Amino acid sequence: MVRCDELARVSAADGGIERVYLSAEHARANRLVAQWMREAGLRPWQDAAGNLLGRLERLRAGRADPEAPAVVLGSHLDTVPDAGRYDGMLGVLMALEAVRILRAPRPDGEGYGAPLPFALEVAAFGDEEGTRFGTALLGSSAFAGSWQDGWWDLADATGTTLREAFLEFGLDPARVGEAARRPDELVGYLEAHIEQGPELDRRGEPLAVVSSIAAARRFQVVVEGEARHAGGTPYDMRHDALLGAGEAALAVERICRGEHHVIGTVGRLETFPGAVNVVPGEARFTLDLRGESGPERDRVWERITKDWDETMGRRGLRWSARAVHDASALTCAPLLRDTIREGVAAVGAARDGVLELFSPAGHDGMAVGAVTGVGMLFLRNRDGISHHPDESVTASDVALGIRALTAAVLALAADRPG
Amino acid sequence: MVRCDELARVSAADGGIERVYLSAEHARANRLVAQWMREAGLRPWQDAAGNLLGRLERLRAGRADPEAPAVVLGSHLDTVPDAGRYDGMLGVLMALEAVRILRAPRPDGEGYGAPLPFALEVAAFGDEEGTRFGTALLGSSAFAGSWQDGWWDLADATGTTLREAFLEFGLDPARVGEAARRPDELVGYLEAHIEQGPELDRRGEPLAVVSSIAAARRFQVVVEGEARHAGGTPYDMRHDALLGAGEAALAVERICRGEHHVIGTVGRLETFPGAVNVVPGEARFTLDLRGESGPERDRVWERITKDWDETMGRRGLRWSARAVHDASALTCAPLLRDTIREGVAAVGAARDGVLELFSPAGHDGMAVGAVTGVGMLFLRNRDGISHHPDESVTASDVALGIRALTAAVLALAADRPG
Repeated sequence: MVRCDELARVSAADGGIERVYLSAEHARANRLVAQWMREAGLRPWQDAAGNLLGRLERLRAGRADPEAPAVVLGSHLDTVPDAGRYDGMLGVLMALEAVRILRAPRPDGEGYGAPLPFALEVAAFGDEEGTRFGTALLGSSAFAGSWQDGWWDLADATGTTLREAFLEFGLDPARVGEAARRPDELVGYLEAHIEQGPELDRRGEPLAVVSSIAAARRFQVVVEGEARHAGGTPYDMRHDALLGAGEAALAVERICRGEHHVIGTVGRLETFPGAVNVVPGEARFTLDLRGESGPERDRVWERITKDWDETMGRRGLRWSARAVHDASALTCAPLLRDTIREGVAAVGAARDGVLELFSPAGHDGMAVGAVTGVGMLFLRNRDGISHHPDESVTASDVALGIRALTAAVLALAADRPG
Repeated sequence: MVRCDELARVSAADGGIERVYLSAEHARANRLVAQWMREAGLRPWQDAAGNLLGRLERLRAGRADPEAPAVVLGSHLDTVPDAGRYDGMLGVLMALEAVRILRAPRPDGEGYGAPLPFALEVAAFGDEEGTRFGTALLGSSAFAGSWQDGWWDLADATGTTLREAFLEFGLDPARVGEAARRPDELVGYLEAHIEQGPELDRRGEPLAVVSSIAAARRFQVVVEGEARHAGGTPYDMRHDALLGAGEAALAVERICRGEHHVIGTVGRLETFPGAVNVVPGEARFTLDLRGESGPERDRVWERITKDWDETMGRRGLRWSARAVHDASALTCAPLLRDTIREGVAAVGAARDGVLELFSPAGHDGMAVGAVTGVGMLFLRNRDGISHHPDESVTASDVALGIRALTAAVLALAADRPG
C-alpha cells in the first residue's frame, strides 16, 4: 500500500495522477519498480517497447536455468488522466509481493522458490490504457508479438507520433519486435487487478476469478452540420452538430441499458467552431463499446448506427465513424481459471463457492492472450470506483489477494511437476 | 451596390472580407466613405473614437443652423472575419443615399432638404462586431457616451491593447469622451440593416420594421458528476456529466422551439477528463439565450433551469451557471417605429400590413439607445445567411429600402414641424 502511494507521486500532474506511455514519468516509474524488483531478488530489464520485466530463474539443483519457461505475473504502470492509484499498479506490486513470498524461506526452513517447476517473471506493461495515443494495450501487444506497423504514425495531443515518442524514450522503433515473446518461453500469464466494478463490493466478497475479458471497440465519430449565427438562425434552419451528437450519446445509453453485458460510453465530446454565439457546425466524440462477446457487441453497434442514421437524417447532419480499436473477447484459459479459483478457495476468501465474473473492462491479458494462456484475479474495490482519485481498496483484501495469487502459482506448480 | 463591392475590397484578408476596429483597413474605409459623404453634400469628420460622421445642416431661411438637433442615419463599417459585404456597410451606404435624395431638388423644383426641421447626420460606426477586442459596440458606445475605462486594457489576438490601438490609429485615448453626443443634439437614430435571419425571405417581403433588439444573456454552465471507468461501471451507478449536458442542450432546443421570440444556443461543450474509456465526470458548456424582451428571456431561462434541475437530479449530477454577459433588450422608440412603418407602407413594400420583427442579433442601436431613440428597418437577405461570404441582397430591395428610409425621415419631419 505504501508503494502504491509512492508510485502515485510519479505523475505528470501536480494535483492528481497521470502517467502515460513513453513519458518522463513512465521512465521514472520503471526505474522505481526496477529497484523494487531487485530488492525482491528479480533481475529487471526494460524491453524494446518500454515494458519493465523482472525475472526469477528456475533453479535446478541449485543452478539457474535461463531457458526455463516462465509464469508471468503482472499488470500495467500507465494511467488514465486524473487516475486512481491501484488500477494496474496494484497488480504489478501484488505480483512482486507474491514472488517475494514464493522466494522467501518458509518458517520450516524450506524455500518456496527452489521447488517451482518454472521461472517467475513480473511484467509491468507500459501502455494498457491507451491514454496517450488513443490505441490501448500497446505495451502488452509488443510483448505478445502483435505490434502493428500502422501504429507508428499515431500521434498524441501535441502531435508527437508514436515513432518519435519511441526515439525520445531511447527506444529503437526498428527493434520493437525484440519485445515479443515466444509461446514456448511462457507457461501462462496471471494478473491481479481491481474489479473496477461494483459486483464484489455489493456481494461482500473480497476476490473473484475472471471468466473472460470483454470484446471492446472504440470509435472516433464526426458529426457535420452547418455553423450559423446563433441569433438570427431559427431552429428549423439549423443543422446543429452538437444536438445531433447529444442525441447520439443518449441513444448509446438507452440502447445499451436494454442489453445484457454490453456497455457503451461517450467519453469525450468537442464542438467546432466552439464559439458561444455560433451554432456548432461540427461535433467530434468517442465511443467505447464493450460486450461479453464480439458478436453481441457488434449486433448492438448495428442497432446504434441505425438509430444515429435516423437522428442525423432528421436533423440534416452527416456522420461517420472510424474504428480506432477492436479487441476480441478473451476467454481465460481453463487451467489458469481453475488455478486462480483454487488460490481463492485456499485462502478462505469465498463463502459460497468462488465468485466468477466477466470483465467489461479491458486488461493486458487481452493482448497477452495472443501468446499464452491468461488467468485473472479480481479484487474488490470500494463502490467499483475506478479511473478516479477515489479508487480505493483495503489492505486486508490486498493481503488476501496476494495470498491467493501465491496459492495459484503453487497450484500451477503442483499441476506441472518439474 | 457598386459601393458595397468597392468597400468589400478594403480588407485585411486577400480572399475574403475582414475589417476590424482601428485597423489600417478601418482608416481606408473611413477615407473612402468620407469622400462619398462629401459627394452627397455632407461635411465629414472622424470622431474621437474613430467613428466617421457626416452632417448636413438644417437650413433656416437659407442659412445653416449648426445648433440644430440631428436625425442620425447609419450603421457600422467593421466586419467579422470572412464576412459578407452588406452587414453594416449597406446601412451606411443606404443612409448616404437617403440623404442625397432628401437633399436633391424635386422634379417640381422644390428641394426636400430645405424644409427639414432637423439636421441630418450619417454615422459609420467603427466597431459593432467586437471582432478585434472581444467586446462589441465600442464605436457606438463612444458615440452614446457610455465608454468604459475598463476597456482600455482589452487586447487583440496579437496582444495590442485598445489603448495602444487608439494611439496607432492617431487617436488620443484621453479625448474619447469628445465622441459622446448629448441627448439634446439628437432627434433620433434610424438604422437600415440586413435581417440576418430568414423571416423576410420566407414570407416574400422585402422590408420589415424592427420592434426591439434582443435581450441577450450568456452563461458558462458546469455539470459535475463522477468520472468512472467506462467498462466496469454499470449504468445505474453512473453519474455521467456529458449525458446530463446533452439532455440540457436538447432541452434548450425543445423549450425555446415552443416559445415565441426566444432562442437559445449551446455553442461550445467540453468533457473532462475527456478520455475515451472514462465516464465523463464533468461537462462545461456555454448557453447564449436571446429574447425579444428581458422578462420573456428570463422567464424561459427559469423554465430551462427547472428542466435542468429535474434532469440533473434524476442523474445524480450537480450543475451551476455563471452569467458572463447580460444585455438588456432595446425597445425601438414608438415614434421612430411608427416612422419606419410609415416609410415601409409609403413605398408599397408591404402586402398585408407592415411586418414587424424583433432582432435576435445585436446592433449599434443597443448602444445608441442610451443617448437617443432608435428606429430600425430590416432588409431581406437571401436565406438569412450572414457573417458569411454568401451574404446576399437584391438591388431592387435595396432601392425600396432607401425609399422607405427617405420616407421615414419625411414622416418624422411631418411629425416635428420646425
